[in-house]
Amino acid sequence: MSTTEFTGRVRKEIDEALFSWIDEQRPGLLAITDDLAPMMTALDALLAGGKRLRPAFCYWGWRAAGGPDGPAIMSAAASLELLQASALIHDDVMDASDTRRGQPAVHRRFEMMHRAEGWPGVAESFGAGAAILLGDLCLAWSGLQYENSGLDDATLQRGRGVYDLMRTEVMCGQYLDLLEQARGRNTVESALRVVEYKSAKYTIQRPLHLGAAMAGADQAFIDVLGAYGLPLGIAFQLRDDVLGVFGDPAETGKPAGDDLREGKRTVLVALALEHATPAQTAVIDDRLGDRELDAEGVTALRTIITDTGALTECEKMIEQYADAARATLAAAPISGEPREALTELTVAATARRG
Amino acid sequence: MSTTEFTGRVRKEIDEALFSWIDEQRPGLLAITDDLAPMMTALDALLAGGKRLRPAFCYWGWRAAGGPDGPAIMSAAASLELLQASALIHDDVMDASDTRRGQPAVHRRFEMMHRAEGWPGVAESFGAGAAILLGDLCLAWSGLQYENSGLDDATLQRGRGVYDLMRTEVMCGQYLDLLEQARGRNTVESALRVVEYKSAKYTIQRPLHLGAAMAGADQAFIDVLGAYGLPLGIAFQLRDDVLGVFGDPAETGKPAGDDLREGKRTVLVALALEHATPAQTAVIDDRLGDRELDAEGVTALRTIITDTGALTECEKMIEQYADAARATLAAAPISGEPREALTELTVAATARRG
Repeated sequence: MSTTEFTGRVRKEIDEALFSWIDEQRPGLLAITDDLAPMMTALDALLAGGKRLRPAFCYWGWRAAGGPDGPAIMSAAASLELLQASALIHDDVMDASDTRRGQPAVHRRFEMMHRAEGWPGVAESFGAGAAILLGDLCLAWSGLQYENSGLDDATLQRGRGVYDLMRTEVMCGQYLDLLEQARGRNTVESALRVVEYKSAKYTIQRPLHLGAAMAGADQAFIDVLGAYGLPLGIAFQLRDDVLGVFGDPAETGKPAGDDLREGKRTVLVALALEHATPAQTAVIDDRLGDRELDAEGVTALRTIITDTGALTECEKMIEQYADAARATLAAAPISGEPREALTELTVAATARRG
Repeated sequence: MSTTEFTGRVRKEIDEALFSWIDEQRPGLLAITDDLAPMMTALDALLAGGKRLRPAFCYWGWRAAGGPDGPAIMSAAASLELLQASALIHDDVMDASDTRRGQPAVHRRFEMMHRAEGWPGVAESFGAGAAILLGDLCLAWSGLQYENSGLDDATLQRGRGVYDLMRTEVMCGQYLDLLEQARGRNTVESALRVVEYKSAKYTIQRPLHLGAAMAGADQAFIDVLGAYGLPLGIAFQLRDDVLGVFGDPAETGKPAGDDLREGKRTVLVALALEHATPAQTAVIDDRLGDRELDAEGVTALRTIITDTGALTECEKMIEQYADAARATLAAAPISGEPREALTELTVAATARRG
């Protein structure tokens, strides 16, 4: 991600708002008992990483709609990172992922603690249970940080509806994703529906809406932000899907080909299946989702995704959605810092490498 | 539970507030796609059962503090049932429970759906994933129903701090419970700490506080309610622990001896271990938490819990905590309907059979 004047400063101030809020919660939690310390350690480790994309889009939606700068909006925006932490922790349990942001996933961290302590019982169950609870805590805390951000109640009230919608949408999107994986075969259309709810709305469109709604934007302005944010969010997720298959582990923080091993039924995979020969289809059916997939298997699937033209087509879709976002932004009644920052975030969300 | 004039009417009105709110959410969810219908079906089935204890204590806390009757407080109170639904759904995933309220647990329901559809992949993973997400949705919705209950914002603002504390406490209590089970051996003291956070505060004390705080009660009144609610909550959970071992499946909605099979390290078990002979300890260590525990095994463990005097001691503790609650209530500045209803709920929470 960028570190230019506008987005670099915002990233830093969002981090400050996030970490100082967490530090305020810490004593209360540890006052119950020191036994809760591993929960905080796991949360600290998770929050050390991350691009703060959702808070950034929320902040710039607010500024684009004329909201004034200050620590309160930073704290309200930062609360979205706790919502994201909740989603990631639960997502990793559901996908049985080993790593997140280059570190052990939260449930794996608690599994290791269970083993290190030599406790009886099943370490995996303890890990999953602790991660479910830490995710729940992050979900509750996201709402708490928002409410305690210091924004006045009229401002918070204007945002509450969007915040609620955002939570419902991302959970439904995650369920649709789970369904998509469960059913095995998918289509470009069904995969795009998951992208829309699980990712595009949640990551970009709704954070922009939240910021603008809090700032008191009218419906026309909200609609313009939506018309910019939705295609950008789709492009963002399609880039994520490409990185999940072809990304460099040093930049993504995930093992090479991790999405293939987890059997993710992405738009990229749906495109490959559309154009695959029967032999290629058989390889996809056989290897995609194979937990033991080795480097050779990853290469075989990557080759099919490239040879079928799926990668080229997906890159073309990313470009088209990003173009649509750029065109909407160009015509939008947004100027000054917010325009420059959103222009920069548009590049960062679609051309990123990790 | 009772169906007398006060608590019976409240139960009915809480149900109306809960179900009508759910019905308002339904079209928006299904408008995304019909694929979300199983989420609503699973939620409907779960909410068909339950004693609505938390909403009832919240409502009577409000009334005891002089809050006026009406549909808005019923809806705010009913939102606690969604928080409880979230806790139960996630708890059942963590404990790998088969049933809840006499029906398949939510994760088992989705497992069965996976099998019935003949989908590839692991039915258990799909079930757990769907249940984690439905639990997340219920957690988000509990806050949403509270915010949209129709109470004015000053009232909601007075309650928000208690609501937040309640969520944090129950999640921390659940984690401490998980830790207690993981460590294997426990003491009466450590088991009581779990009871306090996971159950006593969450089920009775905080709901009372929430209602009273919303109604604008002063700290002295909040403290009186706390001094009544905490021991009652402990008595409630100890009763639950006894029912988990000795309860009638027809009344509890759980298989006989289910807590023994799940290996729950309750106060009851800690009491048994305190007085057990080495031979009895060996049986507990060997059989408690045995997923395959049959009727004979259940009887063996029940016998030890009875023979060590743990059951008698636990019943005595229930009586002592219930006495403390009754004495506080008797001296409290509460009269009329709220006094009668709380008196009745005190009996219901501690003398219940299911």
